[in-house]
Amino acid sequence: MDFSISPELESTLDIVETFVAEELHPLEDHVVHGHWDVIQSELDKRRDRVKELGLWTPHLDEQWGGMGLSLVEFGHVAEALGRSPLGHYAFNCQAPDAGNMEILTEYGTDWQKERFLEPLLDGDTRSCFAMTEPDNAGSNPTMLDTTARRDGDEFVINGRKWFTSGADGADFAIVMAVTDPDAEDRYSRASQIIVPADADGFELERNISVMGESGSGYLSHGEVTFDDCRVPAENLLGPAEGGFAIAQERLGPGRIHHCMRWIGICERAFDLMCRRANQREVYPGSPLGDRQMVQEKIADSRADIDAARLMTLQAAWQIDRKGTRAARVDISKIKYFVAGVLQDVLDRAIQIHGALGVTDDTPLAFWYRHERGARIYDGPDEVHKRVVAKKSLKERASD
Amino acid sequence: MDFSISPELESTLDIVETFVAEELHPLEDHVVHGHWDVIQSELDKRRDRVKELGLWTPHLDEQWGGMGLSLVEFGHVAEALGRSPLGHYAFNCQAPDAGNMEILTEYGTDWQKERFLEPLLDGDTRSCFAMTEPDNAGSNPTMLDTTARRDGDEFVINGRKWFTSGADGADFAIVMAVTDPDAEDRYSRASQIIVPADADGFELERNISVMGESGSGYLSHGEVTFDDCRVPAENLLGPAEGGFAIAQERLGPGRIHHCMRWIGICERAFDLMCRRANQREVYPGSPLGDRQMVQEKIADSRADIDAARLMTLQAAWQIDRKGTRAARVDISKIKYFVAGVLQDVLDRAIQIHGALGVTDDTPLAFWYRHERGARIYDGPDEVHKRVVAKKSLKERASD
Amino acid sequence: MDFSISPELESTLDIVETFVAEELHPLEDHVVHGHWDVIQSELDKRRDRVKELGLWTPHLDEQWGGMGLSLVEFGHVAEALGRSPLGHYAFNCQAPDAGNMEILTEYGTDWQKERFLEPLLDGDTRSCFAMTEPDNAGSNPTMLDTTARRDGDEFVINGRKWFTSGADGADFAIVMAVTDPDAEDRYSRASQIIVPADADGFELERNISVMGESGSGYLSHGEVTFDDCRVPAENLLGPAEGGFAIAQERLGPGRIHHCMRWIGICERAFDLMCRRANQREVYPGSPLGDRQMVQEKIADSRADIDAARLMTLQAAWQIDRKGTRAARVDISKIKYFVAGVLQDVLDRAIQIHGALGVTDDTPLAFWYRHERGARIYDGPDEVHKRVVAKKSLKERASD
Amino acid sequence: MDFSISPELESTLDIVETFVAEELHPLEDHVVHGHWDVIQSELDKRRDRVKELGLWTPHLDEQWGGMGLSLVEFGHVAEALGRSPLGHYAFNCQAPDAGNMEILTEYGTDWQKERFLEPLLDGDTRSCFAMTEPDNAGSNPTMLDTTARRDGDEFVINGRKWFTSGADGADFAIVMAVTDPDAEDRYSRASQIIVPADADGFELERNISVMGESGSGYLSHGEVTFDDCRVPAENLLGPAEGGFAIAQERLGPGRIHHCMRWIGICERAFDLMCRRANQREVYPGSPLGDRQMVQEKIADSRADIDAARLMTLQAAWQIDRKGTRAARVDISKIKYFVAGVLQDVLDRAIQIHGALGVTDDTPLAFWYRHERGARIYDGPDEVHKRVVAKKSLKERASD
Repeated sequence: MDFSISPELESTLDIVETFVAEELHPLEDHVVHGHWDVIQSELDKRRDRVKELGLWTPHLDEQWGGMGLSLVEFGHVAEALGRSPLGHYAFNCQAPDAGNMEILTEYGTDWQKERFLEPLLDGDTRSCFAMTEPDNAGSNPTMLDTTARRDGDEFVINGRKWFTSGADGADFAIVMAVTDPDAEDRYSRASQIIVPADADGFELERNISVMGESGSGYLSHGEVTFDDCRVPAENLLGPAEGGFAIAQERLGPGRIHHCMRWIGICERAFDLMCRRANQREVYPGSPLGDRQMVQEKIADSRADIDAARLMTLQAAWQIDRKGTRAARVDISKIKYFVAGVLQDVLDRAIQIHGALGVTDDTPLAFWYRHERGARIYDGPDEVHKRVVAKKSLKERASD
Repeated sequence: MDFSISPELESTLDIVETFVAEELHPLEDHVVHGHWDVIQSELDKRRDRVKELGLWTPHLDEQWGGMGLSLVEFGHVAEALGRSPLGHYAFNCQAPDAGNMEILTEYGTDWQKERFLEPLLDGDTRSCFAMTEPDNAGSNPTMLDTTARRDGDEFVINGRKWFTSGADGADFAIVMAVTDPDAEDRYSRASQIIVPADADGFELERNISVMGESGSGYLSHGEVTFDDCRVPAENLLGPAEGGFAIAQERLGPGRIHHCMRWIGICERAFDLMCRRANQREVYPGSPLGDRQMVQEKIADSRADIDAARLMTLQAAWQIDRKGTRAARVDISKIKYFVAGVLQDVLDRAIQIHGALGVTDDTPLAFWYRHERGARIYDGPDEVHKRVVAKKSLKERASD
Repeated sequence: MDFSISPELESTLDIVETFVAEELHPLEDHVVHGHWDVIQSELDKRRDRVKELGLWTPHLDEQWGGMGLSLVEFGHVAEALGRSPLGHYAFNCQAPDAGNMEILTEYGTDWQKERFLEPLLDGDTRSCFAMTEPDNAGSNPTMLDTTARRDGDEFVINGRKWFTSGADGADFAIVMAVTDPDAEDRYSRASQIIVPADADGFELERNISVMGESGSGYLSHGEVTFDDCRVPAENLLGPAEGGFAIAQERLGPGRIHHCMRWIGICERAFDLMCRRANQREVYPGSPLGDRQMVQEKIADSRADIDAARLMTLQAAWQIDRKGTRAARVDISKIKYFVAGVLQDVLDRAIQIHGALGVTDDTPLAFWYRHERGARIYDGPDEVHKRVVAKKSLKERASD
Repeated sequence: MDFSISPELESTLDIVETFVAEELHPLEDHVVHGHWDVIQSELDKRRDRVKELGLWTPHLDEQWGGMGLSLVEFGHVAEALGRSPLGHYAFNCQAPDAGNMEILTEYGTDWQKERFLEPLLDGDTRSCFAMTEPDNAGSNPTMLDTTARRDGDEFVINGRKWFTSGADGADFAIVMAVTDPDAEDRYSRASQIIVPADADGFELERNISVMGESGSGYLSHGEVTFDDCRVPAENLLGPAEGGFAIAQERLGPGRIHHCMRWIGICERAFDLMCRRANQREVYPGSPLGDRQMVQEKIADSRADIDAARLMTLQAAWQIDRKGTRAARVDISKIKYFVAGVLQDVLDRAIQIHGALGVTDDTPLAFWYRHERGARIYDGPDEVHKRVVAKKSLKERASD
C-alpha cells in the first residue's frame, strides 16, 4: 500500500495549483455574482495559456490531445482545478462536455467525431446532455417519456427534458430517448442521439432559475423540448438501445470527476475558514481561532475532507484496475459520502465567516447554493445508499 | 398547564392563514425570483385589505393601531405569516420596522413619534437599523468603531455599517454609535440615534450581494457609511449611552418574532415535502412517500418543528410574564435551537423534492439561501450557546 | 396557553425531589453495581415513608390509593422520580407494575382485583407483562406464536416470551396469547391472560444477560416458556381477543411515564455534567467548563431536554383531554424524540466526565447501558417514525 | 498511489481471519459475560497454536520473535484480530503489553530485558502501564501528582493511579512519575520506572467497576497506589525525565493499533447487522433488510468504516515513512475520527438487532459498553481536535 504520488504528478499539480490561484482566483468575483459573459474573453486567454502549458483536456488520452493520466492521477488534477469555480472550464474538462467527449471518443463514428467532437476538443464549442425529465423521478432513470421514432432515415424525437446543463449556447445535445418502448429489459429501451442545437423542433424553453439565478451560457441549466424534432439516423450515438449502458460507463468516471472537484472546493473552503479564524478578532488580540467551537469545526472538516479524498482515490483506482462496472458500488459509496462532506464543510466555513459568509464577497455562498445539488444530481443520496446496502446484504445472503 | 389557544385567537389565525394562502402565495413567485418591485402595487392592495380586516401591525398595542396581543398570541400570528415570504410585510410587522416601531413607541419623543413613527405605523415608510459593522465581529456587539461626537446641537457621526437591512428606500436609520468611548462599562458607551436617509454624509454604498442577490428595496441588505454625518441632538433615541439596553430589550421579542416566522417557514416546507412525497412516483403507483428514507425525514421534521414551536412559545410566555431580561437565557436557547431546526427542515424538504428542490419553482430554495443567515444574524449560534452554558454552569457553581 | 404548574403540584414536587435526593441517591451505588438485593430492606423502609407522605402509587386515582393526578401532573412527578434509578420503585409506580395496575383497575374482575391487584397496590407483590417473543420482530406486534387454546374451563398456553421484565420474583404474568388465530383482523387474534408464577408449565428459563448483567428480581429481564401451561378461564383479563386494544391503551400513558422518567435521567445527567465541568480543572484555575467544546455540549443538552419535556407534557395533555387513541401520533412522536435526546445527553455527560464517566462511580454508565434499550422497547424508533410520517402524508393525500 | 496489499500479506490475513473465526469466536460467549478465567486454559492452547503458525507477537521485529511487519501491514493484521475481543490477546499483541514490549525493546537495559521483557514475549506474564491519575485531568497529561524521589540507590514512589488496565495479575507496572518537579519544561519532569507487582508499597486497591463490570485479570482496570514504594534505581526505564518523550513515541503506533482494532470491531458489527437484516422478518417473506431505514444505516456504516480504514492506514504509512513525531497530527486526526465511527457503527448494529442487540447473545453489547471509552482513553476527542485545528491554523498564520 503506497499513498505517495509520483514526482511527475507532483510537479504537474504544482503548476496547476499556481495557475488556478494566480490566473483564475482573480476572475472569480464575476462568477459568484453571475456575470459569466463579462469574463469570457479573459477566460479565453487563460485557456490559450493552458494549451501552451500542455495541460489542455487533461482527462483524455494523448491521442485526443489529453494528458494520458490514469483516473487516480486525473483525480488529483481535478481536485486542484476544483479550488476555483473556473478551474475545469479553463482546462476544458468541465461537465458535461468532459463526459460527452469521452462518449464521442469511445462510440462516435468518424463523421460524428469530425463534426461534433473535434470542435469540443478544441474548446470552440460546448455541448449538453439531455437525460433528466421534469415529469419523471430521476431516482428511476428508466422512467423516460421522451421517444425517438425511426421514420425512414430519420429519428423523430418528442419529449421534454430539464437540467440539461449548459444547453444555452451549446452546439449540440446528446439526448437519451426511448427507441424500443417494448423491450422487456427496461435498461434496453433507450438510445443516445446527437441533436444539433439548430435542429427544427428543438427548443431551449428556459434557463431554469436555480437558487435565485437563471444564469446563462455555460453556467445555466436548461429546460428543453423536442417537438417532432428530426435528426438523421446517422446521429445515433453508439449501439441502438445502448443508451443506459453508455450512460453508466460515462457516469462512473464522471462521478470521480465530481467528487474530486468537490474535494477541491472543500480544500478552498477549509483554507478560507482557517484564515478567517486567524484574522477575525472577537476582541483585540483574541482571534476566532482560539475558540474551541471554531476549532471543532476545523478539526472535523480536516478529517472529513481527508477521508473523502482517500475514498474517492480508491474508487478511481478500482476503475483504473477493473473498469467502471466492477467499481459500481465504490462509486455509489463516494457519491453520497463526499457530497455529504462537501455540504458540511461549506456550512462550517460559512458559519465561521459569520455575516461575511452569506455574502458574495467570498466564493463560499456561490458553492453553498450551487452545490446543494451535489446530493441530488447524478443520483440522489437515497438511490446510492440503496445500491451499497443491497450489495452488502446480498454478499451475506447465504450466511 | 394548558396548551390550548383561545377561540378568539383560533379564529384570527384562520383568517390570517386563509389570507396568506389565497392572497400572498400567488405573489411569491416574483419574490423568489428577486422581483420585489413588480409586485409592490399588488402588495399595497393586500395591505389595504389587511387594514380593513383589523389585522394591521398585529404586534403592537391597540393604542398604536395594533391588535393588543400578548407575545404568545402574536407568536402564533407570526407563524401563520411566516408561511409566506410576504406575510410579515403585508401585515406591516416585518423586520426591522417592527422592532423600530417598538423602540419608538417606548422611547420616542413626541416629535420623533410624529416625524418617524406615524408614517411607519401607516405603512407609508420603511426604516432600517444600523448596528453591525464589517470590521468588527458581530459576536462581540460592544466592539463598535462608529462614533457620534456631540458638536453643539448636533451629533457628528462617522463610521461604516453593513447588513443594514432594507436601507435601500428607507426613510430613516436608527444607528448605534459610540457617544462615550471612555465609559468603563463597555455596555454603556453607545447611543441610538435617528438618521434620516437624506442627511448629509449618510450614504448607501451598496446593496450587499447575499447568496447571489443584491436585491433592492425591502429585500436588501445595505452597506452604509457615515462621513461627518450631522443630525440634530433631538434625534437621540432614548437615554444617552442607553443603546445596548434598548437593543437588548428590542432583540428579545424580535427573536421570538424571528423564531415563530422560521416555524412558519418550516410548516410550509413540511407541507411541500409531504405533498411532493405523495405525488412523485418512483414508478407507477409507488410514490416517494412509501420509502422509509423519505418517511424518516418527514418524521424527524415533524418532531423537530413541534419542539421548536413549544420552546419558542414558552420563551414568549416568560417574556409576557417576567420581561425580556428575565427571559434572556430562554431567548438564547431558542435562537440556536430553532435556527438549527429551520436549516434541517429546509434541507430535508429540498432533498425530497430532488432537482425541483434547488429550482425557484418552489419557495424552498429562496429560504435555503436567505435563511442560512438565521444561525448568524441576531447573534451566531456560538454566542447564544455560550450564554446558555455559562448560566447552567453558574447555577451550579457552589454545588 | 399557560406553561405554569399549580402551587399544589409545585409543593408536591418539592417533597418528591427532596425525598429522591436525600433518601434514594445514597442507595444508588448498590444499584449501579447490580446489587439490588442488598438494599431491598432499606428500600422497604423508604416505601413505608412514601406511604406516610401520601405519595404512594401516584399514577392512580384516589379510589385505588393513588394521588388522582392528571397525566400532565403525574408526568412532572415521574420526571422527579426519574432522577434516581430507584425513584419509581420507591413510589410503587415502576414499570411494568404501573401498567399492570392500570389494566387491572380498568378490566379486572372482582376476583382478579382481589387476588392480583390488591397486593400489587400494597407493594407486597410484583408482576410482569409477557408480550415480546424472541422469534418474532417486535416491530410487528401482531406476529405472535404463543397460543392459548381453550380447553373446557381452562386455557392451555404454549409459547416462548422474552424481555418479560421483572419476571424473576413476580407473583404473576399478564400474557399476550393468540386465542383466535383465524380472525381476519390480525389485531383481534390475541387475548390477555393472567398466569400465576406458580402455574404448572410456566417457567423462567433465564434472566437475560443485558449489557453484561443478568440482574435479578425487579432489575431483570426474563425469558419465559409456557409448556401446556394451564390456567382457569376466569384468568382471562378483559374481553376475549381484546389483547391489542388493551395493550394499546396501556402503552399510551406508559410511554408518557417512560419519557418523563427519561427526562428525569437527563436532568440528573445534566446536573452531573455541569458540576463536573465546574470542578474538574485542566490546569489549576482553569475548569473544563471554560472550554467551548464543553459549553456546546451543555447548551445543546439544555435545549434538547427542555424540548423533550414540553413535547411530552403536550402529549400527556392530549391524552388527558382526548384519550390515548386520539393522541396516538403524539405518543409515537415523543417516543423517538425523547429517547434520542436521552441517548445524546447521556453520551455528552459521559464524555465530559472523561474516564470517570465510564466507571460506576456515577450513575451515568448504568443509564448508558440500561437505557440504550429506550430506542427499542415499546416500539423501535423506526416503527414510530413510520406512524408519524404516514399520518402526515395521509393528511395531505388529497392535496 | 497503490491501494493493493501484497500477496504474502493477503495470505497471512487469510490465515489470521480463519483462525479468529474458527478458534476464537466460539470462546467469545464467556468473555461477553465477563468470565475470562473460565477460558484461560482454552486460550493458552490457542496461543500455542498461534506460535506454531509463526504469527506470535506480530507487531514486533523478527529479532524479538515477531513478524517484522511494517506498521501498515500490522494494521491489517490488527483489524483481522479486532474482529474478536480475544484476537489481540491470543496473538500476544494486546494493549498494554504490546506497547510495553515496544518500550522495553527500545529502551530496556539488558537486565530489564531479561527480567521483564522476555517473559512478556513468551506470553508467560502480563504487565500494565500506570499513567492516568484520578485527581488530574487526563486531557492534560503533564499534571501528575505521583512522584519518585531518588533515595540512594532507590526510587521512593508515592501516588495514586487509575485505569491501570490489567494491573490485576500483572507481573510489573511501568509507572510514570515526576522525578524533577522543578524542570521548566513541564514535559521534562517525569520518568518511567518499572515497578514489580510484589514491590512493597505497591497496592491494587480495586478493579474499577466500568460499565457494570469490575472484571478481573487481563480484562480489568485497576486503581493502584504507591505508598513509599521502593524500587532499585536500575528500574528506571530509558533516560531520566524522558517519560513523556517515550510515552509519545509509544502512543503513536499504539493509536494505530487501537484504530485498526476498532475497525475490526466495526467489520464484525457490520457483518452482524447485515446478517440480522437478511434473516429477521417483519412479516413472513419481508426481511428487515428490505426497509430503507435499515438500508441507510448499512450504507452509512459501509462508507464510514472504509473511510476510517483508509485514514488509519495512511497515518500508519506516514509513521512508517517519517516516524511518529512527523505523523503527530495524522494520529490525532484518526483518533477522534475512527472512535466516532466505531461508536456510530455499534449503535446502528444494536438498533438493527432490536432487543437482541442489548443482550449479551451477541458481542455487540460488550463492545458498546467497553468501547465507549474509545473516545476518551489515549486522549479525549476534544484534545485531539485541538491538536488538528491548531496545526491547520498555524500553517495559515502568515497568510
